[in-house]
Amino acid sequence: MSHQQHQQLIDALQNCIVACNHCYDACLKEEDIKMMAECIRLDRECAEICSYLAQALCRDTPFAKELASVCANICEACGDECKKHSHAHCQKCADACFQCAEACKKSA
Amino acid sequence: MSHQQHQQLIDALQNCIVACNHCYDACLKEEDIKMMAECIRLDRECAEICSYLAQALCRDTPFAKELASVCANICEACGDECKKHSHAHCQKCADACFQCAEACKKSA
Amino acid sequence: MSHQQHQQLIDALQNCIVACNHCYDACLKEEDIKMMAECIRLDRECAEICSYLAQALCRDTPFAKELASVCANICEACGDECKKHSHAHCQKCADACFQCAEACKKSA
Amino acid sequence: MSHQQHQQLIDALQNCIVACNHCYDACLKEEDIKMMAECIRLDRECAEICSYLAQALCRDTPFAKELASVCANICEACGDECKKHSHAHCQKCADACFQCAEACKKSA
Repeated sequence: MSHQQHQQLIDALQNCIVACNHCYDACLKEEDIKMMAECIRLDRECAEICSYLAQALCRDTPFAKELASVCANICEACGDECKKHSHAHCQKCADACFQCAEACKKSA
Repeated sequence: MSHQQHQQLIDALQNCIVACNHCYDACLKEEDIKMMAECIRLDRECAEICSYLAQALCRDTPFAKELASVCANICEACGDECKKHSHAHCQKCADACFQCAEACKKSA
Repeated sequence: MSHQQHQQLIDALQNCIVACNHCYDACLKEEDIKMMAECIRLDRECAEICSYLAQALCRDTPFAKELASVCANICEACGDECKKHSHAHCQKCADACFQCAEACKKSA
Repeated sequence: MSHQQHQQLIDALQNCIVACNHCYDACLKEEDIKMMAECIRLDRECAEICSYLAQALCRDTPFAKELASVCANICEACGDECKKHSHAHCQKCADACFQCAEACKKSA
């Protein structure tokens, strides 16, 4: 992984962590929370793996490729779920997830 | 994954988290720390992924299999490194890592 | 902190991590999820700080006392919320949280 | 905490996570690793609490103030240790830690 790819991935991961946690928080405050259950679940899952991977990359983990591959899958699953909901926080989160998934795949 | 497999894996992960962090701490206190650099690095890597996976399993993550597969690889790499060193904390950590890798593979 | 106190606290933390994540998962599957929003939020908060503290203790962190003090507060807040709900997973989680809070306070 | 303070703190935390993990990795590769043991230990401690706090803030944790207070102490301890070493990665990490500690204190 080139230094530039690495930096782009870390930026995408940090952006995704913020978007997923914002969406998680906003979903928990929604009136129609029953519809958001899967979104809440995947927002947490995605934020946690992105947080793990961001740190692992900064410390030059020997497992960058396989972790990025799993992270891409989780980001896509979260993006797919968020995309279904019209809330602004969900749409914004979906964008961050798909961008992060792309960045992960370039490094995987 | 059966409930019993699941519980055995969580137990193995929690055991591995403790062993890896003990080994990490003990390595940092060793006189021959230069020889332990890779052990320190892998102890952290292994403890962090085990901690992530243990929590993810308890919350019924949809990504159990692929996470367990990556975790198995990291546990094996950590066990292989620890096995090289005669310190009691390294040998104990190697055992915990290999047991955890086996449990991960059953679930992967 | 004596070795025995330390081990008791790690056991209580690991027990609390499992209970909080089980409760989180079960709350997300409840029909009356709207009533469980605060429980979901605190279950995650509590699981994450317990997971951080368990690892930090195993690696002999210099910040054990102040981390244990914050963790005690979060465990109590989570236990207080869970206690309000009659679901078996909430009651079980409340017990684990209160036991963990007590163990934290002994070490704080 | 105002929205602007909140954003500044998240930026400082993410900057600190990157600097601490870079310094951790670089310390593990230094010839004089024996001298860097405390730096390695505190880099991890600091990266982990910053990572926890960044996520907790994004999800509007009810425990922002007390977590920021503990995080400030850990950032300062890490900065103080890094400051002692002339390696560029240590000096850069010290700066990131002290900036993050200041941002934490404004929010604590």
